[in-house]
Amino acid sequence: MGCLFLLQNIPRILTMFQAAFLLFSLVNIPICVEARVLNLTFEVSYQFKYLDCYKKLSIAINGMTPGPTISAVQGDTVIVNVINNLVMENVAIHWHGIRQIGTPWSDGTDSVTQCATMPGDTFTYKFVVDRPGTYMYHSHYGMQREAGLYGLIRVSLPKEQSEPFPFPYDYDREIILSDWYHDTPYEQATNLSSIPFQWIGEPQSLLINGRGKYNCSLLGSSVGPEICNATNPLCSPAVLTVIPGKTYRYRIASLTSLSSFSFQIEGHNMTVVEADGTYVDSFITQNLYIYSGETYSVLVNATQDPTRNYWATINVVARKPSTPNGLAIFNYYPNHFHKLPPTPPPPGPIWNDTASQVKQSLAIKALRGHVEPPPNTTDRVITLLNTQNTINGNYRWSLNNVSHSLPSTPYLIALKRNLTDAFDQSQPPEDYDPSYDIYSVPKNPNATSSSSIYRLKFNSTVDIILQNANTLTENSSETHPWHLHGHDFWVLGFGDGKFNSTGDVKYNLDNPIMKNTVPLYPYGWTALRFRADNPGIWLFHCHIESHFYLGMLALFESGSEMVADPPQANMGCGETKRFINSTLG
Amino acid sequence: MGCLFLLQNIPRILTMFQAAFLLFSLVNIPICVEARVLNLTFEVSYQFKYLDCYKKLSIAINGMTPGPTISAVQGDTVIVNVINNLVMENVAIHWHGIRQIGTPWSDGTDSVTQCATMPGDTFTYKFVVDRPGTYMYHSHYGMQREAGLYGLIRVSLPKEQSEPFPFPYDYDREIILSDWYHDTPYEQATNLSSIPFQWIGEPQSLLINGRGKYNCSLLGSSVGPEICNATNPLCSPAVLTVIPGKTYRYRIASLTSLSSFSFQIEGHNMTVVEADGTYVDSFITQNLYIYSGETYSVLVNATQDPTRNYWATINVVARKPSTPNGLAIFNYYPNHFHKLPPTPPPPGPIWNDTASQVKQSLAIKALRGHVEPPPNTTDRVITLLNTQNTINGNYRWSLNNVSHSLPSTPYLIALKRNLTDAFDQSQPPEDYDPSYDIYSVPKNPNATSSSSIYRLKFNSTVDIILQNANTLTENSSETHPWHLHGHDFWVLGFGDGKFNSTGDVKYNLDNPIMKNTVPLYPYGWTALRFRADNPGIWLFHCHIESHFYLGMLALFESGSEMVADPPQANMGCGETKRFINSTLG
Repeated sequence: MGCLFLLQNIPRILTMFQAAFLLFSLVNIPICVEARVLNLTFEVSYQFKYLDCYKKLSIAINGMTPGPTISAVQGDTVIVNVINNLVMENVAIHWHGIRQIGTPWSDGTDSVTQCATMPGDTFTYKFVVDRPGTYMYHSHYGMQREAGLYGLIRVSLPKEQSEPFPFPYDYDREIILSDWYHDTPYEQATNLSSIPFQWIGEPQSLLINGRGKYNCSLLGSSVGPEICNATNPLCSPAVLTVIPGKTYRYRIASLTSLSSFSFQIEGHNMTVVEADGTYVDSFITQNLYIYSGETYSVLVNATQDPTRNYWATINVVARKPSTPNGLAIFNYYPNHFHKLPPTPPPPGPIWNDTASQVKQSLAIKALRGHVEPPPNTTDRVITLLNTQNTINGNYRWSLNNVSHSLPSTPYLIALKRNLTDAFDQSQPPEDYDPSYDIYSVPKNPNATSSSSIYRLKFNSTVDIILQNANTLTENSSETHPWHLHGHDFWVLGFGDGKFNSTGDVKYNLDNPIMKNTVPLYPYGWTALRFRADNPGIWLFHCHIESHFYLGMLALFESGSEMVADPPQANMGCGETKRFINSTLG
Repeated sequence: MGCLFLLQNIPRILTMFQAAFLLFSLVNIPICVEARVLNLTFEVSYQFKYLDCYKKLSIAINGMTPGPTISAVQGDTVIVNVINNLVMENVAIHWHGIRQIGTPWSDGTDSVTQCATMPGDTFTYKFVVDRPGTYMYHSHYGMQREAGLYGLIRVSLPKEQSEPFPFPYDYDREIILSDWYHDTPYEQATNLSSIPFQWIGEPQSLLINGRGKYNCSLLGSSVGPEICNATNPLCSPAVLTVIPGKTYRYRIASLTSLSSFSFQIEGHNMTVVEADGTYVDSFITQNLYIYSGETYSVLVNATQDPTRNYWATINVVARKPSTPNGLAIFNYYPNHFHKLPPTPPPPGPIWNDTASQVKQSLAIKALRGHVEPPPNTTDRVITLLNTQNTINGNYRWSLNNVSHSLPSTPYLIALKRNLTDAFDQSQPPEDYDPSYDIYSVPKNPNATSSSSIYRLKFNSTVDIILQNANTLTENSSETHPWHLHGHDFWVLGFGDGKFNSTGDVKYNLDNPIMKNTVPLYPYGWTALRFRADNPGIWLFHCHIESHFYLGMLALFESGSEMVADPPQANMGCGETKRFINSTLG
């Protein structure tokens, strides 16, 4: 039994490794595979793109929107030199799903682990990809992700791996799902901060691998083809080409700003085998529900009629859609990849069939023997009531009536350097008023704003109960995909209505999936458990970009005293300027 | 004879004061007027505005675009706390025309005197306004000025002033002239950096005091009135109300991105009395030519028919216009201010009557007895050939075949902290090949890129000969308004064709005007003289924003060794991060 087997199957032993990470520098990690270093350069710039046929200024990495896929092997050290060429705009890139054990300063979150990187500067992220699986990267700064700054990370098993991927397949492919707005991040942020509140609306297009199709005729005849042209080859549909008879693994990541999707391939079943880097007790489905921040691997057998092509589609669920479905061509070789399927694209499931969505969430369980089960008990329960509120006339999202405001000094540095005035030192609330009516518009919608953090005992087990409620609109409760940085959590359960802690709630303590992102359904609850075993300070937030921007987030600190001082490159903003040596050298 | 008289009339004595500025801190300035402190807060944010009836995201200061006027009295210390609320974009504000004697770190130029200020941070500018006159402020970062970040600075004489303004008037009013694009700064910058080159084009509208009128019908019927509406009261024309019989001083500033203007008031003559803060040997004109970065004061007698209103207009000169003239209403009280004048607006002079433009430049001379004449000789002559070039397929603007690229570490800090690798240490060229044909497209359009600087002997007298030439387009030479930071210069002369240093050039050494911005005319030359008596490093650049962005600038260093170490707030970017104390405190 080699080290990789250990890493994969008995994650609790990792705690020892984590200690090693901290005690020794990264070069000294005791790994048994070849310690490869992947040295990448990401040049980030604005470029005009036609992702959905409409000309829009997008953020590109090395000229590409979405950015290039990072293909690494388990155990690799990944170094990404991010060169900011955004003229006047800063940048920070988060490596979503990578736990950053021993490297919390590389988590890429503005206000939390680093000062954003200024134009003209280069920031070097360095981290180890310690587990195989499908992850993603994206901007974690303001509303910047919306401009297209995202891509996929695939971590493969080493070739010499004793235990192969438990589900055989022939080819490994990628699908990035996203939604696309024609407004800029600045326009969106300005709208969201307006009084009266101005909602950003539904996206203009849905994209599969960065390609969609906007109906240019909606813009009127005065808008020329140089601005919007449905026949522009740059926005021809994405193509998934298959060889008849072969089995494909599709690594699917959702990088949406807002939308929840159902993904399906006309006439083909999918076998779900991986979720957020964890092996799934596989199950077959016609459609995959996927929420912003989630990744899945599905296996698809190319065993249908090989003389034709099929549609691959995404449609919006969990919000009433006003965006046309996204379409790609599932192309049986050797048919021409632009040959349209003879049948109309499947419409996908109806948007508000929450029961079907919850059912799939409940079906996603860990593959036994491959994932450690959770501890049977917890050290602490934090209940977070999700509400929409107002603060001084601005719309905000809140947890237990507190809407988070991110400080200008990164928490990690404030903690390490004892900058106690850099953020609110009070304790955020652990629960909400039990008499709160989750089915009604709040009687008093006022919330407070705070930058306070949850401090967790290192290595303790923590349960999070996400509790949904009614928004500021009658008979409305939204779906929120919650994402945790620096850790995976066990998904213990989902339920309808108010979470009842008195005993009638049944947790799955047997084979719960471990994930980093999970949906909270309308008027429902979601229960998570995780071990606070990664020293640092970590975001936990709704992955809908506008909700995050409006304060729907919390911070979990634990063991930050064990973390080394962050690099100089992480500083330069807010109170970190205090540490600039003010005497001439 | 009081100190103020000294400050105004015998600027050479200032050198002693400057030494005092350096030896003592600003609080110890030996001034004879009350040392008032003007403490201002500028909250900078994006806001939707309808300046020309078209909805555009603009940068506002305290909610206003253009920003508020700074009204100070000579001798005041002005403190401006700039709070950056631009979400993901940095900011730097330059106080144009304020020489920043003793406070070079408050000049507000990104890459030169400071790191731009990050979102969430506050930067405090502190400087003394040592001379009465009309100045301006604006963003000096990337293409940010274009988004509307600008305003006016008026410095009045103290009430107890022994010598009043030499031209009597009844009321003191302000006129900000600008041009307005519907593209964002990011779209413009991306276009300018494209291969093939994509020119930003002419502005959509011309604005008088932030108001213009775009022809919304050009957008087609699919664009609703919420986007463009010519009857929106927010874009009703600016109004200049006058009381019959009174004399008005109009302080006029041009903050255009690109355009040169002729300004006139229908049926009224203007008496030009101030230019860039210096008293003019007054002259009467029907129309005032004004270039980006210039300010003038004109006196207007409201002695025409008081029963009607008149037009105040701006029209583009020096480039073939494709933007409608800008219109305001010159309103005789008590007529309604929206009552349209009965006559059509005057079209203004034709755009390419360069002779008339040069004639006015030659007419602008200093008011004798109020401005020190220049030294008769110079210590150094730097000739700068202005050309359009290409570098690796990108269009650039160059001086003596060198296109400037600004470094990521501010020069002032690099100089003070001996960061010799932060910029090119070589000497930029002082002249160009005398065989160069200024009337033709360059045979070899390739230029080089450099961050090198001119080092001037402290207190030496320096002449600059700006030499114009043909662009990359046949039979084309453009007008460039050149602006010097930290100093005024004497305008010694203008001429047609190649500057001839052999003797037939006649300088005005008797009563040249002192200015900070001056035009260079097509195929012509402009000769300037200044004393390098302000310790620091200072930009000299074409005030057309896109030309500056494409490298049309130089840097003049002198006496920087006398400057104190810049504040911590100016650092945080580029190599200044090296000075962040990397040990835990």
